[in-house]
Amino acid sequence: MARWALKLEYDGTAYVGWQRQVNGPSIQSVLEEAVARLEGAAVACIAAGRTDSGVHAEAQVVHADLARDMAPSQLRAALNYHLKPHPIVVVAAAEMADDFNARFSAVGRAYCYRILNRPARAGLLANRVWHIPQYLDEAAMHAGAQHLLGRHDFSSFRAAGCQASSPLRTLDRLDVRRRGDVIEIVAEARSFLHHQVRNMVGTLKNVGDGRWAPAHMAAVLAARERGAAGQTAPAAGLFLTNVRYAQNPFAGDEE
Amino acid sequence: MARWALKLEYDGTAYVGWQRQVNGPSIQSVLEEAVARLEGAAVACIAAGRTDSGVHAEAQVVHADLARDMAPSQLRAALNYHLKPHPIVVVAAAEMADDFNARFSAVGRAYCYRILNRPARAGLLANRVWHIPQYLDEAAMHAGAQHLLGRHDFSSFRAAGCQASSPLRTLDRLDVRRRGDVIEIVAEARSFLHHQVRNMVGTLKNVGDGRWAPAHMAAVLAARERGAAGQTAPAAGLFLTNVRYAQNPFAGDEE
Repeated sequence: MARWALKLEYDGTAYVGWQRQVNGPSIQSVLEEAVARLEGAAVACIAAGRTDSGVHAEAQVVHADLARDMAPSQLRAALNYHLKPHPIVVVAAAEMADDFNARFSAVGRAYCYRILNRPARAGLLANRVWHIPQYLDEAAMHAGAQHLLGRHDFSSFRAAGCQASSPLRTLDRLDVRRRGDVIEIVAEARSFLHHQVRNMVGTLKNVGDGRWAPAHMAAVLAARERGAAGQTAPAAGLFLTNVRYAQNPFAGDEE
Repeated sequence: MARWALKLEYDGTAYVGWQRQVNGPSIQSVLEEAVARLEGAAVACIAAGRTDSGVHAEAQVVHADLARDMAPSQLRAALNYHLKPHPIVVVAAAEMADDFNARFSAVGRAYCYRILNRPARAGLLANRVWHIPQYLDEAAMHAGAQHLLGRHDFSSFRAAGCQASSPLRTLDRLDVRRRGDVIEIVAEARSFLHHQVRNMVGTLKNVGDGRWAPAHMAAVLAARERGAAGQTAPAAGLFLTNVRYAQNPFAGDEE
């Protein structure tokens, strides 16, 4: 029996999120079925970030204990075979020490949120962006975002159902930049509260469209009340892009 | 009655291509139905490039004659409403002189072809790339591509069913570059033969995997015979990215 780390990429559109639910297929259930076909037995898969329904991952990290002895490239290929035709793939695999935990060993998480900011709705980027037709001032959004950096009580940006024991988090990065019609918001922290990134993005939207001045973000943060912030941005624009560990598990099996 | 130019973005995955066919929905048939709902009468739409089934467009250009008098932004919004839920959108619209022809007035076309070059198949880029697991040398591919620049008989890269009267074309640009796991091939010319870009990409693949030296591209070109070149690269990786005219029709209605 060995503990494995898997780096997963997925299109979350058609799934109820990472976690098993009764109301539809989850990324976890699809992955656990693929692992079970390989192992011939049920195996639990634990993820670094429990992405919500419709949220995507460029680099989710998962751990699982497997009895079969395989090379990382063999395991990756076998799982990708069993994961077909789902848009869920194992990009890399690595054998880890027994105490590695995809969730609790993680020391950093990065998300990217994309807004399509043009009059026409999304064609090629359907289900990958939040479409906002009116022009947003990304420089004002970036200036507003900087008020959230550091260690704070993020209750204003926390989902009602959030199960974290504390609302304190340390936000290391919140950058807003435009690439043509697409506004990208990059967020980095050790960990995030439930819906924190989407609630920060929904609040920055109110800065981008001129309703609020950038400095109002400090007042929203200080209120420590969900009602002070903006809407929850739609899931489709959110991508889990990186999970950091003290050592990169996949240094030996990057493509 | 006024002649309009429309800039279209579409995901070609679920369509039989630009042109109307009996065997399934085409981009043209979906667009013409949307225009007919707006106009209350059938209207022909003529495209700059007749993309094949599965080929995408970031910026296809189409012309059509419309009786209704509307501002460009109104026409764009109305067509996008009628085009729902198809992943086909009008990004910009412009009223043109009566002699504007999306196909025959075009003075340049640009395509981008994307190869996902990593062991794992595509997740987020499913239906958007050609997946090639073995490592490709993009520098060798770029060197090989430069042998095709200029005015030549491109019979080696021409589909059997190509209806062009001459196999002579002038290739202005064929650049190959890597961005992480994705190899992008950018091709520019006044016009291309049927399957020319996909056949050039399929041939460059044989350079990237080491089967042929870069200089062999000159021999393939000189053979003027389809059998001398490589395979036709799959449609999914191809994007029509720009159509150039003497004047940019959409200068006044870019988002």
